[in-house]
Amino acid sequence: MTDKGKTVVLAYSGGLDTSCILVWLREQGFDVVAYLADLGQEEDFEKAKRKATKLGAKEVVVEDQQRELVEDFVWPAVRADLVYEDRYLLGTALARPCIVRGLVRVAERVGAGYVSHGATGKGNDQIRFELGCYALCPDIEIISPWKDPEFYEKYPGRIELFEYARKHEIPLPITPKAPWSMDANILHISYESGILENPATHPPEGIFQLTTDPEKAPDTPQILTITFCAGVPTRVSVAGDAKQVTDPLEILRTCNRIGGQHGVGRIDIVENRFIGLKCRGVYESPGLTVLRAAHLDLEALCLDREVRKIKAHLSHRMAEQVYNGLWYSPEFEFTDRCIADSQKMVTGSVTLKVYKGGVYVLGREAPVSLYNKELVSMDVQGDYQPPDARGFIRINAVRLREHHRVKNASN
Amino acid sequence: MTDKGKTVVLAYSGGLDTSCILVWLREQGFDVVAYLADLGQEEDFEKAKRKATKLGAKEVVVEDQQRELVEDFVWPAVRADLVYEDRYLLGTALARPCIVRGLVRVAERVGAGYVSHGATGKGNDQIRFELGCYALCPDIEIISPWKDPEFYEKYPGRIELFEYARKHEIPLPITPKAPWSMDANILHISYESGILENPATHPPEGIFQLTTDPEKAPDTPQILTITFCAGVPTRVSVAGDAKQVTDPLEILRTCNRIGGQHGVGRIDIVENRFIGLKCRGVYESPGLTVLRAAHLDLEALCLDREVRKIKAHLSHRMAEQVYNGLWYSPEFEFTDRCIADSQKMVTGSVTLKVYKGGVYVLGREAPVSLYNKELVSMDVQGDYQPPDARGFIRINAVRLREHHRVKNASN
Amino acid sequence: MTDKGKTVVLAYSGGLDTSCILVWLREQGFDVVAYLADLGQEEDFEKAKRKATKLGAKEVVVEDQQRELVEDFVWPAVRADLVYEDRYLLGTALARPCIVRGLVRVAERVGAGYVSHGATGKGNDQIRFELGCYALCPDIEIISPWKDPEFYEKYPGRIELFEYARKHEIPLPITPKAPWSMDANILHISYESGILENPATHPPEGIFQLTTDPEKAPDTPQILTITFCAGVPTRVSVAGDAKQVTDPLEILRTCNRIGGQHGVGRIDIVENRFIGLKCRGVYESPGLTVLRAAHLDLEALCLDREVRKIKAHLSHRMAEQVYNGLWYSPEFEFTDRCIADSQKMVTGSVTLKVYKGGVYVLGREAPVSLYNKELVSMDVQGDYQPPDARGFIRINAVRLREHHRVKNASN
Amino acid sequence: MTDKGKTVVLAYSGGLDTSCILVWLREQGFDVVAYLADLGQEEDFEKAKRKATKLGAKEVVVEDQQRELVEDFVWPAVRADLVYEDRYLLGTALARPCIVRGLVRVAERVGAGYVSHGATGKGNDQIRFELGCYALCPDIEIISPWKDPEFYEKYPGRIELFEYARKHEIPLPITPKAPWSMDANILHISYESGILENPATHPPEGIFQLTTDPEKAPDTPQILTITFCAGVPTRVSVAGDAKQVTDPLEILRTCNRIGGQHGVGRIDIVENRFIGLKCRGVYESPGLTVLRAAHLDLEALCLDREVRKIKAHLSHRMAEQVYNGLWYSPEFEFTDRCIADSQKMVTGSVTLKVYKGGVYVLGREAPVSLYNKELVSMDVQGDYQPPDARGFIRINAVRLREHHRVKNASN
Repeated sequence: MTDKGKTVVLAYSGGLDTSCILVWLREQGFDVVAYLADLGQEEDFEKAKRKATKLGAKEVVVEDQQRELVEDFVWPAVRADLVYEDRYLLGTALARPCIVRGLVRVAERVGAGYVSHGATGKGNDQIRFELGCYALCPDIEIISPWKDPEFYEKYPGRIELFEYARKHEIPLPITPKAPWSMDANILHISYESGILENPATHPPEGIFQLTTDPEKAPDTPQILTITFCAGVPTRVSVAGDAKQVTDPLEILRTCNRIGGQHGVGRIDIVENRFIGLKCRGVYESPGLTVLRAAHLDLEALCLDREVRKIKAHLSHRMAEQVYNGLWYSPEFEFTDRCIADSQKMVTGSVTLKVYKGGVYVLGREAPVSLYNKELVSMDVQGDYQPPDARGFIRINAVRLREHHRVKNASN
Repeated sequence: MTDKGKTVVLAYSGGLDTSCILVWLREQGFDVVAYLADLGQEEDFEKAKRKATKLGAKEVVVEDQQRELVEDFVWPAVRADLVYEDRYLLGTALARPCIVRGLVRVAERVGAGYVSHGATGKGNDQIRFELGCYALCPDIEIISPWKDPEFYEKYPGRIELFEYARKHEIPLPITPKAPWSMDANILHISYESGILENPATHPPEGIFQLTTDPEKAPDTPQILTITFCAGVPTRVSVAGDAKQVTDPLEILRTCNRIGGQHGVGRIDIVENRFIGLKCRGVYESPGLTVLRAAHLDLEALCLDREVRKIKAHLSHRMAEQVYNGLWYSPEFEFTDRCIADSQKMVTGSVTLKVYKGGVYVLGREAPVSLYNKELVSMDVQGDYQPPDARGFIRINAVRLREHHRVKNASN
Repeated sequence: MTDKGKTVVLAYSGGLDTSCILVWLREQGFDVVAYLADLGQEEDFEKAKRKATKLGAKEVVVEDQQRELVEDFVWPAVRADLVYEDRYLLGTALARPCIVRGLVRVAERVGAGYVSHGATGKGNDQIRFELGCYALCPDIEIISPWKDPEFYEKYPGRIELFEYARKHEIPLPITPKAPWSMDANILHISYESGILENPATHPPEGIFQLTTDPEKAPDTPQILTITFCAGVPTRVSVAGDAKQVTDPLEILRTCNRIGGQHGVGRIDIVENRFIGLKCRGVYESPGLTVLRAAHLDLEALCLDREVRKIKAHLSHRMAEQVYNGLWYSPEFEFTDRCIADSQKMVTGSVTLKVYKGGVYVLGREAPVSLYNKELVSMDVQGDYQPPDARGFIRINAVRLREHHRVKNASN
Repeated sequence: MTDKGKTVVLAYSGGLDTSCILVWLREQGFDVVAYLADLGQEEDFEKAKRKATKLGAKEVVVEDQQRELVEDFVWPAVRADLVYEDRYLLGTALARPCIVRGLVRVAERVGAGYVSHGATGKGNDQIRFELGCYALCPDIEIISPWKDPEFYEKYPGRIELFEYARKHEIPLPITPKAPWSMDANILHISYESGILENPATHPPEGIFQLTTDPEKAPDTPQILTITFCAGVPTRVSVAGDAKQVTDPLEILRTCNRIGGQHGVGRIDIVENRFIGLKCRGVYESPGLTVLRAAHLDLEALCLDREVRKIKAHLSHRMAEQVYNGLWYSPEFEFTDRCIADSQKMVTGSVTLKVYKGGVYVLGREAPVSLYNKELVSMDVQGDYQPPDARGFIRINAVRLREHHRVKNASN
């Protein structure tokens, strides 16, 4: 058991910033445990581990959280059709509470009194990270150097940080830093800041890593079928491939692969951060885009109209909660349970075509659904009396005719 | 002035159904005034006029309502980002109150006491039509043969209707009826019923008329820039074309043409009708899809986060109102005014790329916007103190830590 | 087993209208089973039973539904804080689905193909009654004479109905009909129509039956304590009375008695019916008013702020559902489960004073609550850092300062 | 013109805290301008002015803001039916932005670069005060000693503050401090903290200053009639008093006087502060309670049902905005304009009885209203066809019957 007073668990990425923070924390007298979550990002985890050890980490924990991320964070989001401000699928926001959970687990195991991270002081991630930590572990102390003037005033730019790195034998990146920052996980990659800060100009060619440029995507579309059970994806079948994918992690990977090949899921938006700033974000979320299209479509088949409306309201709330870092909050827990309850009947399959950036629904079916072909048919009357509609309309008009009366009276 | 008691204004389409209704109304002793709205659909209006006259219409009014449709109905929808159940852009629903307005104008001019239409008894259009008429003209009587057992029991299928047509020298359609029904206007075409009633199978090749199949769309994307003033489109510039389009009708036509060529705006959905049935609809709305993408994007740049949230709530309500035929209602009038008020600052331009079914935002700018590059920049501090975020987060955590305390206490 | 084709179950009240309907239904060739629900209204049920039998009912079912009403309908309403249009506690609306359940049970037992009721064609109760029947028993046929021109045109007023009654030896009411109509159950009494139709004049002295006129209520207030468990009332203790009331039915009766003695729960409102009319209603709901005040107060102590907000939104929806007769609907079932879920922590006691029409909360306590005296105290710092609030405010101001910048720029 | 760098405008109350702050600010090297808003609270403003001058204020501004408060802050709240968390009428929250406006006016006149106030670091008022200042004057610096450890650690309790006062010849309060804090203005008085921090015990006898104890209120009720125009109070007539009160300030005073005499408007609640704490507040708002009851009632007569629903949603948002100190925010400005728009038809009069703590509506009328006596009458058919209701119900049942089908299928 480490001395709580002197141990900090650092969310370590292997990059320059958190390497410098690792060394700086040691300078402040801390024992540093580095926590590196494998969320599916491109990374040489073994190399990162050796690096952290070399920089003096007392312990380095590399944890594969991919399955946890998909099952516990992505599936609830898919089930809820989460989307922030009409367009952002929350790829980064969903990963944060997953990392927090891993980090706090380690903090509790080693008895650390502190956690630390390298998120900046203007972004959302600091909030998602810190609110999550406080929620799971109310007494934890958080060290966030980019909000600490002692740190950020000393290293206001790359030059000063490079200087510090050189001085402390922290390996410098070999490739020059891209003129933007990115955050990657199995779900998506986000790109922001740097040259992307001008919302009037579009991102440079070649920025995207998970998705083919739609203009370079295959000329042949790909068809796939996604099956859901109680709102959660349970199977993907890709046309032309006999294999049925049923493992959650593999379902997401398959959707990512197919979506990515066909250029699906790129967006370029201006969004509102929790701290009240507008920022420009460029995202690619191929698999999530495919899954959302499918789920939304199946829901239309299975959910009652009025239940759907209430659920849609809850979904907007939940998207905000997730975006704002409130995954571990009473309101999220409540909303998530309500949405899960709404999905009992959302079971069935949707067939989609992906083609050069687009996702097209081709058809959907459900063992039990509210779609009643006979009732809606124009050719069959079914159990429906057209004259009833007359009364329905006339009663709905009562209020409108009264409004007409009053408008005339008041003119 | 016609005798009110015996005159009916019929919403006439030129097709078999409303031709039969025209004759049937005359059989019931009515003087029939046929009203045929030109909303941009493919139609030989002169021929339709001659046909109605020959069938005994006392007067035939053909009215070009395209400009009215765009300026008074489509622009408020674009300004409000209207979308029904996440996907349907309301192309048919927006046209209905426009026709109703024209029809009621004629009814008032000729002193008719009745209006009539050919919409079926299971659909939304009967409601949009009739609620609109009652709202604008509370004392009007509505004759809707497809809700009248005397009519629909006599003509339960095409065969009986053909028989009736032959008997009354109503010209039969030369081309065989498509195995679905469609409704077209300058905004969009909807396809439903018939073979489309099975939501599991996709629509046949070649059903679409306004949009190229994305797979057959040009290999070269098209770039265009749309300018809005107070939320309303005021200009379109198409890359490679020196002409600036500023006329509202031409703006919509240009967006339709470009969108249509590139296969933009097709959807295939299951939706919930006002009468409580689920139906399957296939729609193509090329121009509206392009305009919505642009407006939504500009709004993200110009609207305050919290105003946007309230506006989004109002937009959901308004989409429902429009879908349900409540354009002429106190709640629509109120909501529309609120949304117009929200758009004062939504002025600027968005540049888009359309390519094989997709619409991609490339950039946006506004003379005055809430986007503050310096404030959000990762490289510049701007008028922002990172330590403030610490307090912000800690205060937001107060509630979460309390929740943790209570959860522990109650376990 | 009765012949389904010829048997109707009539919601029988014992009064003139449903007695006439009973006879009229027999005239139409039906076997009539009279269903009379004992919901706690003042009624000589034995006498009513004999009357129905004498009028030719094939069977008369009198069922005590009071407990069912309280446990299955009132408690969910209390738990949800249901109130329609800010003021109406839904006393009648809650009773309707309870009666419907009983009626359908009988219809199923006797194999009846029809149900009938005496609600008018302009009110809400016809809707609550009929929607409930269709929802529980989709194939049932409903006979509602007051919507049937053959019936209501024959008996447009009391005179014609009296005439009919005399002719068929239906006992006429001995006391003259009050110049208003009323509906009573254990929860409340509603008064409407007749002289109450003028919303400018107040109801006559002496109209109320469950509540003392506040001006004549005792000069000494009464104190009572209500305990809830998971949002549902589980105990009432009345100051000065050693008995602890824990039976649900007795809890409601006690609250009614105390509230009624002290003049609590009268309202006089204009409200909006589902059919689009405004009507004036005068209600007295003593117990429900007391219970609502207590529950609302305890919730403030136990529910997290954001959970409360979401729950409040759901509560508004649910009140509308109940008012509109949608108790047996997918949306009600969903909303009710969500609200039940929100109440897990709403356990504790509230002490109230009732006095001359008012209910005053004196104090509340909960074994586990989010109220943290030390944290909120002005005298103790607790686990709270005042400087954090500075950052909280400054970050919340970011958006406001940007708004100021833009307003200035656009002037 | 004062040197901006060294001048602070202090929101001065005349009490011990802000007197100490005044002196402390001078010690920090500031020129202090004391701003004392007369919002109708009990205060000897001349004496307070002399006191501030004696303590070294460079200038003392006493401003009567009562009219401003009523016309610009209270009337919009009444028009919107504002209430926070179902019960709190926002008496303190409405006064804060009024004071802020006055304070900023002075700061701009004297060219001050700083403002200061004596609100604590755990409350809402600091937020309302500071957000307002930042919104109106983004570059202002705010000095809030109770969030400044240098100050609050020096004076953690009354003893230290008294010590400081004695040392600097700041007059000590003659009467012992009440064991709670209070905030008063023309609208209401709030009581909190101290002995009130225990939510289980009720406030002591005699705490209230604006309202008579209902038990001691007159035995004779008082009747009054309030007239609104476009949602805003324009006249009060008190039964037995020939005078018609039409001046806004006098309207509020009259409602306060009548309400107060009859014990109206006391509440005792637990509420959720913006900073995430639950606190207990005891409030008395006699006039506002009366006005709200009247406005709500008139609205029910004049507003369309669906407009009312949308307006109610906006009202909840607006109450939160006001509570949270966001009066000067883009969302408040937008919401307030929407609500004002909703009120165009809310013109008419409501007659009320106040009696021993209760407000009872006796009747209401409007020159033009949606209430249609003939249409709703049970005795007259009016322009209403009862059989229409059958179709209305049957169409509403379509969805419910489908739900039944699906439930059965899935069991």
